[in-house]
Amino acid sequence: MHTKGKITAAISLIFLTATLQLAGQRNDLSMPDISGYVTLKCDFHSHTVFSDGEAWPDVRVEEAWRDGLDAIAITDHIEYTPHKGYIPVKLNAAWEIAQKSAADRNILLVHGAEITRDMPPGHLNALFIQDANLLAVPDFMKSIEAAVKQGAFIQYNHPGWKSQEPDGIPKLYSIHKELITKGWLHGIEYFNEFEHYPLVLDMCREYNLAVMGNSDIHGAISESYKRPDYSQRPVTLVFAKERTLESLREAMFAGRTAVWYGNELAGFKEYTEPLFYASLSVSKPYMSNDKFIFFEITNQSDLPFYLINGPDGAPKEINIPARSSVIVRAVLKFAAEPLKYDVRNIITGNGQILNVSIAVPGI
Amino acid sequence: MHTKGKITAAISLIFLTATLQLAGQRNDLSMPDISGYVTLKCDFHSHTVFSDGEAWPDVRVEEAWRDGLDAIAITDHIEYTPHKGYIPVKLNAAWEIAQKSAADRNILLVHGAEITRDMPPGHLNALFIQDANLLAVPDFMKSIEAAVKQGAFIQYNHPGWKSQEPDGIPKLYSIHKELITKGWLHGIEYFNEFEHYPLVLDMCREYNLAVMGNSDIHGAISESYKRPDYSQRPVTLVFAKERTLESLREAMFAGRTAVWYGNELAGFKEYTEPLFYASLSVSKPYMSNDKFIFFEITNQSDLPFYLINGPDGAPKEINIPARSSVIVRAVLKFAAEPLKYDVRNIITGNGQILNVSIAVPGI
Amino acid sequence: MHTKGKITAAISLIFLTATLQLAGQRNDLSMPDISGYVTLKCDFHSHTVFSDGEAWPDVRVEEAWRDGLDAIAITDHIEYTPHKGYIPVKLNAAWEIAQKSAADRNILLVHGAEITRDMPPGHLNALFIQDANLLAVPDFMKSIEAAVKQGAFIQYNHPGWKSQEPDGIPKLYSIHKELITKGWLHGIEYFNEFEHYPLVLDMCREYNLAVMGNSDIHGAISESYKRPDYSQRPVTLVFAKERTLESLREAMFAGRTAVWYGNELAGFKEYTEPLFYASLSVSKPYMSNDKFIFFEITNQSDLPFYLINGPDGAPKEINIPARSSVIVRAVLKFAAEPLKYDVRNIITGNGQILNVSIAVPGI
Amino acid sequence: MHTKGKITAAISLIFLTATLQLAGQRNDLSMPDISGYVTLKCDFHSHTVFSDGEAWPDVRVEEAWRDGLDAIAITDHIEYTPHKGYIPVKLNAAWEIAQKSAADRNILLVHGAEITRDMPPGHLNALFIQDANLLAVPDFMKSIEAAVKQGAFIQYNHPGWKSQEPDGIPKLYSIHKELITKGWLHGIEYFNEFEHYPLVLDMCREYNLAVMGNSDIHGAISESYKRPDYSQRPVTLVFAKERTLESLREAMFAGRTAVWYGNELAGFKEYTEPLFYASLSVSKPYMSNDKFIFFEITNQSDLPFYLINGPDGAPKEINIPARSSVIVRAVLKFAAEPLKYDVRNIITGNGQILNVSIAVPGI
Repeated sequence: MHTKGKITAAISLIFLTATLQLAGQRNDLSMPDISGYVTLKCDFHSHTVFSDGEAWPDVRVEEAWRDGLDAIAITDHIEYTPHKGYIPVKLNAAWEIAQKSAADRNILLVHGAEITRDMPPGHLNALFIQDANLLAVPDFMKSIEAAVKQGAFIQYNHPGWKSQEPDGIPKLYSIHKELITKGWLHGIEYFNEFEHYPLVLDMCREYNLAVMGNSDIHGAISESYKRPDYSQRPVTLVFAKERTLESLREAMFAGRTAVWYGNELAGFKEYTEPLFYASLSVSKPYMSNDKFIFFEITNQSDLPFYLINGPDGAPKEINIPARSSVIVRAVLKFAAEPLKYDVRNIITGNGQILNVSIAVPGI
Repeated sequence: MHTKGKITAAISLIFLTATLQLAGQRNDLSMPDISGYVTLKCDFHSHTVFSDGEAWPDVRVEEAWRDGLDAIAITDHIEYTPHKGYIPVKLNAAWEIAQKSAADRNILLVHGAEITRDMPPGHLNALFIQDANLLAVPDFMKSIEAAVKQGAFIQYNHPGWKSQEPDGIPKLYSIHKELITKGWLHGIEYFNEFEHYPLVLDMCREYNLAVMGNSDIHGAISESYKRPDYSQRPVTLVFAKERTLESLREAMFAGRTAVWYGNELAGFKEYTEPLFYASLSVSKPYMSNDKFIFFEITNQSDLPFYLINGPDGAPKEINIPARSSVIVRAVLKFAAEPLKYDVRNIITGNGQILNVSIAVPGI
Repeated sequence: MHTKGKITAAISLIFLTATLQLAGQRNDLSMPDISGYVTLKCDFHSHTVFSDGEAWPDVRVEEAWRDGLDAIAITDHIEYTPHKGYIPVKLNAAWEIAQKSAADRNILLVHGAEITRDMPPGHLNALFIQDANLLAVPDFMKSIEAAVKQGAFIQYNHPGWKSQEPDGIPKLYSIHKELITKGWLHGIEYFNEFEHYPLVLDMCREYNLAVMGNSDIHGAISESYKRPDYSQRPVTLVFAKERTLESLREAMFAGRTAVWYGNELAGFKEYTEPLFYASLSVSKPYMSNDKFIFFEITNQSDLPFYLINGPDGAPKEINIPARSSVIVRAVLKFAAEPLKYDVRNIITGNGQILNVSIAVPGI
Repeated sequence: MHTKGKITAAISLIFLTATLQLAGQRNDLSMPDISGYVTLKCDFHSHTVFSDGEAWPDVRVEEAWRDGLDAIAITDHIEYTPHKGYIPVKLNAAWEIAQKSAADRNILLVHGAEITRDMPPGHLNALFIQDANLLAVPDFMKSIEAAVKQGAFIQYNHPGWKSQEPDGIPKLYSIHKELITKGWLHGIEYFNEFEHYPLVLDMCREYNLAVMGNSDIHGAISESYKRPDYSQRPVTLVFAKERTLESLREAMFAGRTAVWYGNELAGFKEYTEPLFYASLSVSKPYMSNDKFIFFEITNQSDLPFYLINGPDGAPKEINIPARSSVIVRAVLKFAAEPLKYDVRNIITGNGQILNVSIAVPGI
């Protein structure tokens, strides 16, 4: 019997006499590579109907493809499956189903699950697992151990989520420190959904963990992030040797990440500084007189940069929108001497922002 | 155990100490009532994960609420359930689940199902059923009979869909005529998803059936209808005595419908003509001289009107965008005599458009 | 000789064989009338090429028509005419030129000028004048007197503009108090361009002056207010007996105004309170159980309302976006007792916001 | 005396204690260079208040900078100056005034004028002139001669404009052919404002003239081109040896141009073909099986490409939106053999479109 079996044109494959073009488009999310690494844009936290999400697993892949991402993890709750009256609990189901979509679209699909407990320890994602069923045990430490035995990267999720942490301040409880001591904790979320937790950067630095940023999407990405301030979901930028699952995993265990949400980039200086310089190009002066040089700064990335605390003889503030250029006038000495700024929207620690130097090339 | 159980803020209920406000907003979809009836905006064709859709049933209600609709039907395929390896077939499940969301948001939820067969007869929706299980029988006529016995309104879906009707021309086969003879067919889709079938209006007039227009959504509404030309999904306008399920059903069996998609309105003149006049107001002349009067036409609806074939001494064409007004200059005689136009985007039959008269009120 | 003489289609009149329709559209800017008055949307501060503006006078009328305004004033600087090397100073020129466009589009055009001095007194608009040339005298008081003799309404402009008032705090200097004593000052700007001056409301109350809000536009409205936060220019709402220049003037001298910019409404409670209630409709409960009633609040205006400080048993905060509705759940007693809120974005004085009562109609 | 002298923040220079940053931003209009040349984006037809335009000359530069253009000409009418009752006719005024803005923003400003006559000859722009006053002579041929003596590039404007050419068909009258014979005509507009004239490409090829595309803007660019179909004004792409006025002029006399408006690119194959290939990158197959290869096509430009008439075993049509990528599945032989398509939106002659080959790189 032929059936309609129609799927939404805007996000689905259209098969035309044994050939295909993806209906819809993959939008370029522009963020440069940095020296020696390819910059992978990833979302390691998402849900489907197999736990408490509202989307079929393929949707997560289709959204990621459309949004220009390289990798995602579907991380359905292990202990929280409110749809089980209609959908029997199968903890690997979302990953099994989404694999074909991911292969079709060249998206790296990380097998994951969310271990979902009261605080402490709260919620933790196990990424790069083999079988989520082995994590479904009552004892929390045994659950983590089962994940680690499969080679999992363990991420502490939304540590300042007020439903579990009423004062909103992320904390490392003794159980988290025990995980760290055992080498069983590898990253902490700085961004989750619409929230950010500035203290996380310092925690990650102290304990040598990766900074993570993810959507934790339950509904549709296009519904949640449509507002002007939320034009893009939170992503984890991973600086990998190549665009493969193995390289992705290696980079995450090595802590080579930064996080990006809306207009904010956060991460250690060793990664955010080269991202800043790789995003911008500075022109030679196109005009000068006896007092001033005039030059252009062009931003090729999708992240705006807000420069503040500029030197005397140059603008105090320079805003360089995404994929745009601006004109700057500065006194003559800056033809030979770099301009020092702070970047208000690049966070390198709690209360710390990136310091940069803008050098105008010679004529 | 407390769990996160987080649902997407943009489309979900936020519970705050035993009280709630719906996060997000219901957008007004403006289309006036017509004399004696309330104009209900409805979508009678949609899918969920319980057949081949990509969304949990609540999503359909949340989308309808946000989009300003009054009523929807979820119409999962009876015979096509590709997710059954993961989700056991329960033909009433989507309706059971969505009832609470619908009550919370004051959305009229019609219990439905899609009888899904090769052409002929193709696909037919049974609306206002009690139990979809009784329709799951091999014999097509017995399936329809089971629906009709429950009081169902039977809709012939996407009759020009090229996967089943390669020439794209909607047809009434003998099996459809048999249904009509028995009184077992009540409406035909003129709009489905992104398609329209102009011949359907004439069929509906000949056989006294209701004109229907629906999204047949499988993915997310916000993904499918975001393009400028598709700012709104197809809807069926039902002219009901009041905003209840019973009145809705009565109006549909009485054939009091029109259909609207994007910039196009289609339906019998007896409904589209009063919609046109109720949408517009014409000002008195605000200026005049020895040759001309100047006046305003204001459109309160979300449907633009494209007037063409104007009389001598007045604009040949007038475009009146949604929720906007335009200024018109016409020769003096039109202070006393109406201006005749055709409305290019109101379809009243195959190759027929609505003729209207614009009368300028006296000063 | 025929020439092209083409004018921009999007904002100009297209003449078609002695008939016309305005190309483009007038967008409805929705704000209700209040009891006994029509609410006129006005911008009393704008510039053209005849002082230091960048637009021909007709542009100001075309923009106002498109934006749904009722009245504007063009208020070119009297003492600052930097284009005079190319355009001879003619202080009434912009008004002379724009009159035809204003009549064509049914826009009320107020004859105005900006008296432009160092602080104090700073800049003041003279509105409803007859001849701006008579204001072009060196002595400031004589300039104001010349305006007042013509029946002018005198408005103190941008009193907290940092170029003239470095601390940003609006002040009434002795020269302003002298004007007030003589009855020669009638209004003060609370909004100007992108700025607002919260202290102005208290000044206006103390001295019985009208609160004013205007764009002070020099370039193109569509360039200046395109950002999401600035979707609409500042306007003065004038509560007039009818839509004529005479009624407009009477209402302004009577102080019947409020001001609106983006998401903020400011003005005395006697005007902002009825605007609030006229903008909203509250449904009967559409559902109730033994604990709660559920009802809808619909906002017909283009101004969102942010309700805060709600009572126990109801949402603490309710955001009601423009032209949208929201759903509210409250405990049963609110079927009989109004819900008290503060409206965060309706400013009634320095540090004061509007208090409101939401009464749910009986069933 | 200090005066306000405020100019619109969104499009003007903000001076901050002897330093500046341009408020607003220059948007990148992405179109690649082609071998040996830099691709300059230019608009050679615009008006100001000095003829019948509605903007001060600086506005034209500010708009061009914001829109990512490299060069503009202001071409006020010589014979049509309807503002002369208020603005004395000075034919070089707009160029004089705009020079400072152009230098500040690194925009190449071409000195121009529009010779404005009945048809034939209609309207012609003289570009790269020295003094427009010398063109203000009654005799048309003498006017052109005066321009040519200054080294001018002569462009025949909007040859199918119905106000002068009622059938809409562009024609070369004997007076135009006389110009061609003398070497006094160098280009013809294919795009003007919202119109296009497909016959122009063949005329340009036959007579060895440059294809031109310009806005002919009279009002504000942001008003005229805001509709979805008109996201960008018409531009002339000039393939110059470097980004200077001299190189620009050399390239135009050499006929190295193409034209771009909205989704349509037009020009001779020798320029449009390399633009196509420079805009796209084709990935190696990222997946293959025993029947198919899967690969990506990425479009770095702001022009979408609509590929049609594809070969058997590959999609019949491929739409590659601006700054996006798409996925293609094709049968195995296309790993070794290019896929042939026609590009529906690249026009190379009247009724002719570009033919292209897509070669998938080896693994």
